[in-house]
Amino acid sequence: MPEYTAPVRDMQFLLHDVLKVGESDIPGYDELEPDFTAAVLEEAGKLASEVLAPLNPVGDREGCVLENGVVRTPAGFREAYAKLREGGWMGLDCDPEYGGQGMPYILGTAVGEIFVSANMAFNMYQGLTHGAYSTINAHGTEEQKATFLPKMVEGIWSGTMNLTEPHCGTDLGLIRTRAEPQDDGTYRITGTKIFISAGDQDITENVIHLVLARAPGGGPGTKGISLFIVPKFLVNDDGSLGARNAVSVGNLEKKMGIHGNATCVMNYDGATGYLVGDLHKGMRNMFTMMNEARIGVGLQGYAQAEAAYQAAVAYARERLQGRAVTGPKNPDGPADPLIVHPDVRRMLMDQKGFVEGARAFVLWGAQMIDRHMRAGDQDAHGLISLMTPVIKGFLTDKGFESTVLAQQVFGGHGYIEETGMSQFVRDARITQIYEGANGIQALDLVGRKLGLDGGRHVMAFFEMVKDFIKENKDNDALNADFLEPLKAASKDLQAAGMFFMQHGMKNPDTALAGSHDFMHLFGHTCLGLMWARMAKSALAALEAGEGDAAFYQAKLATGRYYMARQLPATALHLRRIESGADPVMALDAEAF
Amino acid sequence: MPEYTAPVRDMQFLLHDVLKVGESDIPGYDELEPDFTAAVLEEAGKLASEVLAPLNPVGDREGCVLENGVVRTPAGFREAYAKLREGGWMGLDCDPEYGGQGMPYILGTAVGEIFVSANMAFNMYQGLTHGAYSTINAHGTEEQKATFLPKMVEGIWSGTMNLTEPHCGTDLGLIRTRAEPQDDGTYRITGTKIFISAGDQDITENVIHLVLARAPGGGPGTKGISLFIVPKFLVNDDGSLGARNAVSVGNLEKKMGIHGNATCVMNYDGATGYLVGDLHKGMRNMFTMMNEARIGVGLQGYAQAEAAYQAAVAYARERLQGRAVTGPKNPDGPADPLIVHPDVRRMLMDQKGFVEGARAFVLWGAQMIDRHMRAGDQDAHGLISLMTPVIKGFLTDKGFESTVLAQQVFGGHGYIEETGMSQFVRDARITQIYEGANGIQALDLVGRKLGLDGGRHVMAFFEMVKDFIKENKDNDALNADFLEPLKAASKDLQAAGMFFMQHGMKNPDTALAGSHDFMHLFGHTCLGLMWARMAKSALAALEAGEGDAAFYQAKLATGRYYMARQLPATALHLRRIESGADPVMALDAEAF
Repeated sequence: MPEYTAPVRDMQFLLHDVLKVGESDIPGYDELEPDFTAAVLEEAGKLASEVLAPLNPVGDREGCVLENGVVRTPAGFREAYAKLREGGWMGLDCDPEYGGQGMPYILGTAVGEIFVSANMAFNMYQGLTHGAYSTINAHGTEEQKATFLPKMVEGIWSGTMNLTEPHCGTDLGLIRTRAEPQDDGTYRITGTKIFISAGDQDITENVIHLVLARAPGGGPGTKGISLFIVPKFLVNDDGSLGARNAVSVGNLEKKMGIHGNATCVMNYDGATGYLVGDLHKGMRNMFTMMNEARIGVGLQGYAQAEAAYQAAVAYARERLQGRAVTGPKNPDGPADPLIVHPDVRRMLMDQKGFVEGARAFVLWGAQMIDRHMRAGDQDAHGLISLMTPVIKGFLTDKGFESTVLAQQVFGGHGYIEETGMSQFVRDARITQIYEGANGIQALDLVGRKLGLDGGRHVMAFFEMVKDFIKENKDNDALNADFLEPLKAASKDLQAAGMFFMQHGMKNPDTALAGSHDFMHLFGHTCLGLMWARMAKSALAALEAGEGDAAFYQAKLATGRYYMARQLPATALHLRRIESGADPVMALDAEAF
Repeated sequence: MPEYTAPVRDMQFLLHDVLKVGESDIPGYDELEPDFTAAVLEEAGKLASEVLAPLNPVGDREGCVLENGVVRTPAGFREAYAKLREGGWMGLDCDPEYGGQGMPYILGTAVGEIFVSANMAFNMYQGLTHGAYSTINAHGTEEQKATFLPKMVEGIWSGTMNLTEPHCGTDLGLIRTRAEPQDDGTYRITGTKIFISAGDQDITENVIHLVLARAPGGGPGTKGISLFIVPKFLVNDDGSLGARNAVSVGNLEKKMGIHGNATCVMNYDGATGYLVGDLHKGMRNMFTMMNEARIGVGLQGYAQAEAAYQAAVAYARERLQGRAVTGPKNPDGPADPLIVHPDVRRMLMDQKGFVEGARAFVLWGAQMIDRHMRAGDQDAHGLISLMTPVIKGFLTDKGFESTVLAQQVFGGHGYIEETGMSQFVRDARITQIYEGANGIQALDLVGRKLGLDGGRHVMAFFEMVKDFIKENKDNDALNADFLEPLKAASKDLQAAGMFFMQHGMKNPDTALAGSHDFMHLFGHTCLGLMWARMAKSALAALEAGEGDAAFYQAKLATGRYYMARQLPATALHLRRIESGADPVMALDAEAF
């Protein structure tokens, strides 16, 4: 069974050396003292290593079971959830008004990575609750907030999101679930929703479903959709649980992975629902939850890769096989450990370079969210809106690749379920699919986000890269290894954007045919920027003679690997984009 | 459940338009008339569609079970195997002396693709038997051949290969299984082998294990290893089955995929074994089986991708979601089919371009094998030896990627086991791992095959590319779209080889650190050559006004896609190779 250790040292480096949270003027960041964040992360790490990670293979093996209409989660999930609740982890970054601890989102994100690495399927119960909390907090009435949020923050009630129906996932304009207004101001919700993660369980006392449905009088397509709260149990005026609502689990899906999380078909048979936000504006309101969820899924992508990487490193150190071509490294043993072999190194460095870059990217993104939420910074909001599809799409595509590489390090043993590597791969695979398949992320990026506010946010990104290069141009140690490759990547990204502008009017398929490559080009450039920033901080620390020199040296070596071996992928992505839509669209549908 | 249709039209195009088997002077190729090959492939396709493909999900769901020391295969496997046997498919390309039909290897390969696409786990029982047949046929005594081969060719007995042990897979020099010589000339085999595919089953009457073991008097490492036949049941002089041999199944592995094939721990407890070939030369002899198996695994890589691609195309045509950006294509329906969307096209074209290129590559390789085996052509042998790791490593890496893309087309439905897409991905994953993990293929390529016979074979490959470009330089329709990109790829490949030569002496890690990228660079160049050859044939057919113009047009469009969007990856691989070993090896093992 793979062991897991929270990467606290690395997170501390990001929070304090790179993102310098202590120097930030974002309200609440003054609490993020190094000792404090270290203590929180260590404590989360302990829970992750001792409780959550050992449950991960149990959840995979046992899966969830539907019994008498109620989902039973794998053995130990209930108890582990209670531990999370007792530790106050549920409401870490939630509003103190509803019982939360009011910590910045960036700290919640770092803790989230730790929990997701240890047990992704388990953590989804809490993650979806958090998303539902945010949505009700943003769009609900005061009464709704008072009724639902304290119990959700405490972890006694959970939350879900209900969008997909059998005939529509991506294209929510086709939704058929109906909401009929009642005289008392509530709605009767009727329809079938599928792929509802954490749709039911035996962990919390109530489940608060957020449901998209069509009320009379709305327009066609997504314009006529509204958002409703549909609790599993109705709530009495005194907050106690009342009657069972007319919502039930129709089926449990048998999936490739995340077996520990119940993916439900939910049947709504005239269930009582409460409108959230304005009528017919449900899609807009649901986006609060979807955007948070998309960043959360990007995090899952690299968090799985991190867990798998740790296992691969342990195996590569321990398994003796073959001899180093430069001479035995373990002359007294029957063979050298795998880690001496250059191709094994390549696989480990690919993983390490990706995971550490991705972590920097997501924590940087979390800082943007805090800047928006806590300081009202609209530019930060624009930037994170632009980046959300990149975080989701790029980090999950690469996260899956990275997890597959970790499995590869194990050779045949990686294919045997017992080692746990197959589970990492099977679990990671969903991250490319749910919360908007990655093709949809790419479409959102080039079709919507690039042009948002007149293209202001993508220009701000280019400025940020340019400024960083300019500010550091006299830093010789940074220049050739980091700034030059970053400049080249940024140039490729700009050229791709330019190509879309020049050809998009003539042929609207141009940007769409290049959207996947553009998302990857963008993602690489972001990770290149993150590595350049990390390298700068590592160099500064080395120069100052502070702390653990070996840690900073390793950071630099890993960054150099990323810049030399991964970042040049931008040229290939540009090349594909510049081949235009014709090669992609040339065939008739019948010719496939 | 995914449906499967054998790509007979495409195979006929390759055999007759591209490889022109009818014009070949290879003995036996005169039998490969278009009508004959079409009839064979159609018949194999019928069996595949009607019998094997429907059993594929059954095998995945039920898996194999160990009962009272014997493996029980999934329901229907026994009966399906009987149908294969009755149809004479087992011995299609086997020696008529032992009951085979004596067809060329290229026809067996095309039929093999069809069976593997339909049901990979099932076909492994037959595939391993074929490998064992080839090994005994090449290295066994006349008596051994007479005893074992007829029953194996008939399909009444099966074969396996036993290499891996718990502590060694790649590094076979560490093998501990012992062979003690007996007075009667036999050996007593004692030891434990793991990951033995098709190690036991209830399909055939006997299982002929080929086992690597260490006999007294050999050198250390791989030099002291010999190859033995160890039948499950001893064979009496009259050919009937005798006593149970001291070999048993210790355990069945629980794997990520290929559940329908029994992956066994085999215990040899003083089992009777018969030496095959010379004492202490077992590794060399086993390579007959391994080389055949490696090409077979490369075939599995793209055959799974083909099956998954067919399912993805069907889904993309049928599932209605969203509208084409260029205007509705299905105005009377609620939405357009997925296939109108450029990013879905990109995914389908990636798959189609890969699968068709890979098929050409493998059939071309099969022709080289026939040229060697039937016409004694040593150059052909050198070329296919060089290409074997490329076929195995590149086609399985890309085959897995392609299969994952097919799953992605299904969105959330692809993650649900019911659609069968998860099985394709889980099954395809093993191809990158077994028969020498792909890192070993890359090592074999740069460490051994490149320099083989003074580098003569890689030079022959470059000549072949150069000659093709030169011969066709006046073909304008071919030039810009096919010859120029091929020339660029070939130049990248030569530059990579040059880089290894220049830096390999100084630092032996250089080639190893670039081996994976070199294998992919080589693979892309081979597929580029195949696409250029297919384009040439398609253009010629169009010009001659022969046959189905739409088929040839689609072939050209698919080839153009590959050349424009996939082949340029060679530049990225070269770039990584030229970054040298330093970035890969910079970290201390402790710093991971």
